[in-house]
Amino acid sequence: MLTLHTATGTCALASHIALEEAGAEYRIARLAFAVNEQRSPAYLAVNPKGRVPTLETERGPLTETPAILAYIAQRFPAAGLAPLADPFAFAEVQAFNSYLCSTVHVAHAHRMRGHRWTADPVVMEGLKRGVPKSMGEAFALIEQGMLRGPWVMGEAYSICDPYLFTLARWLEGDGVELTLLPRVLEHRQRMAERPAVRRVLAAEAG
Amino acid sequence: MLTLHTATGTCALASHIALEEAGAEYRIARLAFAVNEQRSPAYLAVNPKGRVPTLETERGPLTETPAILAYIAQRFPAAGLAPLADPFAFAEVQAFNSYLCSTVHVAHAHRMRGHRWTADPVVMEGLKRGVPKSMGEAFALIEQGMLRGPWVMGEAYSICDPYLFTLARWLEGDGVELTLLPRVLEHRQRMAERPAVRRVLAAEAG
Repeated sequence: MLTLHTATGTCALASHIALEEAGAEYRIARLAFAVNEQRSPAYLAVNPKGRVPTLETERGPLTETPAILAYIAQRFPAAGLAPLADPFAFAEVQAFNSYLCSTVHVAHAHRMRGHRWTADPVVMEGLKRGVPKSMGEAFALIEQGMLRGPWVMGEAYSICDPYLFTLARWLEGDGVELTLLPRVLEHRQRMAERPAVRRVLAAEAG
Repeated sequence: MLTLHTATGTCALASHIALEEAGAEYRIARLAFAVNEQRSPAYLAVNPKGRVPTLETERGPLTETPAILAYIAQRFPAAGLAPLADPFAFAEVQAFNSYLCSTVHVAHAHRMRGHRWTADPVVMEGLKRGVPKSMGEAFALIEQGMLRGPWVMGEAYSICDPYLFTLARWLEGDGVELTLLPRVLEHRQRMAERPAVRRVLAAEAG
């Protein structure tokens, strides 16, 4: 049995959706970020990074969204969540998800997780001010080409889609000008209508 | 024929080493960051992100180090650069590389690429000051367990090793206290002695 350690409002939503789309059997273990449960000794024993998501498997824990998403696609190949038999197409999927984790998520993190890079409150405030621009620029590249439509990789739904959906839910909070991102918003709406996504959002709401 | 777009001193070194280890036929196209060649129209046509590495293939360009590394491992399976037949072990490789790109490389980037997140010189200076601590903490987790030894994944050399080697070369410049990282330094030395790594470093030097 797989157990996904997650927390509401985080990027772990992407892995949760992928598990649901894959038809996997899994349990959800929800951490309370409000009381810093991700830094508790019990959780640090599972994931010393103190972050979500962690996917516990029979063979041990896996971390990092792009790795977990590819693992779900490989473990449940019948769900067709990645072009596993085509190294080039698989690399395109991975490149998109890597961009989301190392550029888009990082741009977002400067709003509320500035403490990762500075202890100076003035610097932290400065980082917050930069988020609408850096997050907007990161999403502009997605809008202008990386998102092929109707799904990220074109006609085939893949592990890129729940990940993009998850980060696109942060746009309003990050102060990004939404009118510049019509294709991203269409994708977000298309995702929200999928039965698996509805089930996961309902579970997350409570 | 593969063409790797790279620039001296960047994370593209990891992909260069992986190509060499794989015994691939490839060409190197070296960009001059000093004159901002990565933002030239010619290069932006190849990679709209204006970053390195880009690996041009017969089917088009691939970007993002973790994606390129996994692609090289899959395209040259005889080189044994990743446990391709074992989804869990492959996910562990991917999780390590994802951590390098989204946490370690990002911590480093706050030293010289602060402009990605702010236009304010005061904030930029503040980010620089935070680098020894954030980069040191990121490497402490590697030292304390993620690096299994003698190679990252244990006995088997993999695409994690050239990537870790590449980022570990930034430690001195980032002001990290090296005495806390004996295992990382041993790994760096072990890497520097590999024939493929020597060839690539010689080519990079010139």
